[in-house]
Amino acid sequence: MSQLSNASMNIIIRLHFQKNLITFSEIAKVIGEAGGDVIGIDVISTSKTQTVRDITITVKNQQHGQTVMDEISQQEGVKILSVSDRTFLLHLGGKIEITPKNPIKNRDDLSRVYTPGVAQVCNAIADEPLKAHSLTIKRNTVAVVSDGTAVLGLGDIGPLAAMPVMEGKAMLFKQMADVDAFPICLDTKDPEEIISIVKSIAPAFGGVNLEDISSPRCFEIEERLKAEMDIPVFHDDQHGTAVVLLAGLYNALKLTGKNIESIKVVLNGVGAAGTACAKMLLAAGVKNIIGVDRVGAINRNETYDNKNWTDFAYMTNPENISGSLTDVIIGADVFIGVSAPGVLTVEHLKTMAKDPIVFALANPVPEIDPELAEPYVRVMATGRSDFPNQINNVLCFPGIFRGALDCRASEINEEMKIATAKAIANVVSDDELSETYIVPSVFNQKVVEKVREAVVKAAYESGVARKDLFKEENALVRSY
Amino acid sequence: MSQLSNASMNIIIRLHFQKNLITFSEIAKVIGEAGGDVIGIDVISTSKTQTVRDITITVKNQQHGQTVMDEISQQEGVKILSVSDRTFLLHLGGKIEITPKNPIKNRDDLSRVYTPGVAQVCNAIADEPLKAHSLTIKRNTVAVVSDGTAVLGLGDIGPLAAMPVMEGKAMLFKQMADVDAFPICLDTKDPEEIISIVKSIAPAFGGVNLEDISSPRCFEIEERLKAEMDIPVFHDDQHGTAVVLLAGLYNALKLTGKNIESIKVVLNGVGAAGTACAKMLLAAGVKNIIGVDRVGAINRNETYDNKNWTDFAYMTNPENISGSLTDVIIGADVFIGVSAPGVLTVEHLKTMAKDPIVFALANPVPEIDPELAEPYVRVMATGRSDFPNQINNVLCFPGIFRGALDCRASEINEEMKIATAKAIANVVSDDELSETYIVPSVFNQKVVEKVREAVVKAAYESGVARKDLFKEENALVRSY
Repeated sequence: MSQLSNASMNIIIRLHFQKNLITFSEIAKVIGEAGGDVIGIDVISTSKTQTVRDITITVKNQQHGQTVMDEISQQEGVKILSVSDRTFLLHLGGKIEITPKNPIKNRDDLSRVYTPGVAQVCNAIADEPLKAHSLTIKRNTVAVVSDGTAVLGLGDIGPLAAMPVMEGKAMLFKQMADVDAFPICLDTKDPEEIISIVKSIAPAFGGVNLEDISSPRCFEIEERLKAEMDIPVFHDDQHGTAVVLLAGLYNALKLTGKNIESIKVVLNGVGAAGTACAKMLLAAGVKNIIGVDRVGAINRNETYDNKNWTDFAYMTNPENISGSLTDVIIGADVFIGVSAPGVLTVEHLKTMAKDPIVFALANPVPEIDPELAEPYVRVMATGRSDFPNQINNVLCFPGIFRGALDCRASEINEEMKIATAKAIANVVSDDELSETYIVPSVFNQKVVEKVREAVVKAAYESGVARKDLFKEENALVRSY
Repeated sequence: MSQLSNASMNIIIRLHFQKNLITFSEIAKVIGEAGGDVIGIDVISTSKTQTVRDITITVKNQQHGQTVMDEISQQEGVKILSVSDRTFLLHLGGKIEITPKNPIKNRDDLSRVYTPGVAQVCNAIADEPLKAHSLTIKRNTVAVVSDGTAVLGLGDIGPLAAMPVMEGKAMLFKQMADVDAFPICLDTKDPEEIISIVKSIAPAFGGVNLEDISSPRCFEIEERLKAEMDIPVFHDDQHGTAVVLLAGLYNALKLTGKNIESIKVVLNGVGAAGTACAKMLLAAGVKNIIGVDRVGAINRNETYDNKNWTDFAYMTNPENISGSLTDVIIGADVFIGVSAPGVLTVEHLKTMAKDPIVFALANPVPEIDPELAEPYVRVMATGRSDFPNQINNVLCFPGIFRGALDCRASEINEEMKIATAKAIANVVSDDELSETYIVPSVFNQKVVEKVREAVVKAAYESGVARKDLFKEENALVRSY
């Protein structure tokens, strides 16, 4: 883990202590001797005989924090009231807020944004519903929809526990791309019900980002919503990963001088993300993809209970080969893992074609330890921030929705996704491109703007943009 | 109408003109001669031969604006591209936004608010779901739910056209009481579906404000949601009006020295708001209320198709009298109109008891013109901002939800509503109280704080508050 991630081990302890029994400097000494570093003190309340203070302490890890606290609580006159850490404190009361764009300063303002003035705006929309895209938050607002069934690597933890992830996503949407996003965490797992709810709440939204919905339910939900709604629907776990992977692949191929149409790709883990990655690569021109899951290479000789695998066999594996990962990885140019820690070995790498490209995206522990792999690969990417080449959805979703909203796209199609991958890849200039820099940093401010431009262009060219480019919209409220 | 409301007649005209045919000063002269006042100019684009400018012009009213535009368009070389006004411009792109409370400044921040750090917060909520009230936006967020079937006085204009009202409401929630509110405008009118959707989206919310849902569907929806959810549900059109009316009545009775238990109240318009007002008055101690609708006084001799009227007859009209408004208003102390313009006449007022109190709440045109009524009433209140004593829900909903969220109330009960009415009434001091000042201004900053205090106290006393008052919550994330 990087130094930076260690910073998460600041703990904040609320201490009550009796002044006649112990002084703060004595407590600080105990903390220091236990290896903790006091970096902040806030007095919460105090009297002549006792005081309550919040002490912020840097510790090595959770266990070390516990040791420090044990030492403190053995002192006479001290009571630990509570303990927290910066991560929890950042979540207190939630991470987003809903604010007026303009303050209501007086009665005149009030009569414009609320009754009676608002009535003429309501009437304008009732007369011409498309005006909702100009005169309401629909123009800039995305629903981040989850049922909490596949949250991060935690599984089915439910809609309440999924909220912090969706709030985090909303923060990123706003900060990265000025998109307003609101978490809709649904207390139901029934696909029909989810579809029906999302359609019913659509008036407020200009787009839908599906998130952390388990497979295979996520396929049906996305397909149906795409077919039945006139605003973009995008399951980020599938397509966000696929788009950023393709961006990385474009640059890795540039480095190795290989042609996308002639590479052999082995994809381990044929779930929602794996299937989306395969479809994206096929759309981008890859001809030879072999999917592998716990049953071995997915092929057309078998009948699978998992309908997704059967479909997958028909669109991949042109030579219809079978066998284990060990069998099929021989001669592969690219390995893509969206599976589980440790499934890829150094022995596998040794059998790949020259200049192996490895995307080991299992998170937080990749399919192979990057340090073990390093001598045997040309390009290595993971989902982690503490190794080079992080394949992170944050590179994709803010810009792709920014572009889709700006041209009022009715959907996010393959053309827009491929344009996004190319735009992300192109943020890395030829001078910068190297084995350890195939995708830009998530904090690279060029990414959103480049992605936005590419998405808008692709949307117009593929006929899904609905905003008249040449219409001066800003002041056009009533046509004259 | 007040001077202030005239300010809404600034129009903004986007003009294209050819410089060789006409100059801006010539256009300005035409505008001036037509009675318009140019108060702002923005150059949008310009070249040697032509230019596009936005001209902001103060005009008397919409018709006058049209006259000014007609004069302009008769000039050679000028084309009006579009016209707008300040109200529309305030709505461009919507009126609210969703913003991070803290910026994500670096990778360390990112790893706390999103993966991987967020996982420990998700786990904490999965282990103990009540923590969602501390660690997510649920603590401070209210859904403003409408199906667009009874928006303002506009009727069933649909969920898209209802959005501007719900956004305005969200602005008021935030500005008045720091409550985060998000508009949920539902594209369905089926009560069962609305109930099911609101329950499903509840994880993100600490309360539900129902808004502009037509009667009688609104009754069932509210009752069912109150029974089936563990967060407060409040139909503002019913109860907001009722609470502020009661606040006004408390002060009107103080002025006239009448006792709430012995007054005769005639209530015209037995719909959703009227029924809620009657229930509120009954809960506050009024004994004699007679409801009147188009069938005359609602009584227990009749059988009504409208089930609400039948129920209403059994809880009101103690002497079971029948007849028209003209019959039953004789000797009444209080008239409450939640009905239609002009139904109350001066002749009616003359037959009321001494010191008539009139709440003529039809909006925008009251049951009787306040100027006509003035010589015959002691206290007169309306729903309008340009006459004294405006009965405005804005006095109620921000503070009542602020209080309910702060004590984590499971519902908003009668005790909390009556406490709210008393708190609003008490913001008007005995020194200030007069016939033209029975309720405070919506901009009076004491209102929300006083309502909040009263609501929290009433919630604890009536047993619906769920937050342990004595628990130091701020830093308490993990108990020690």
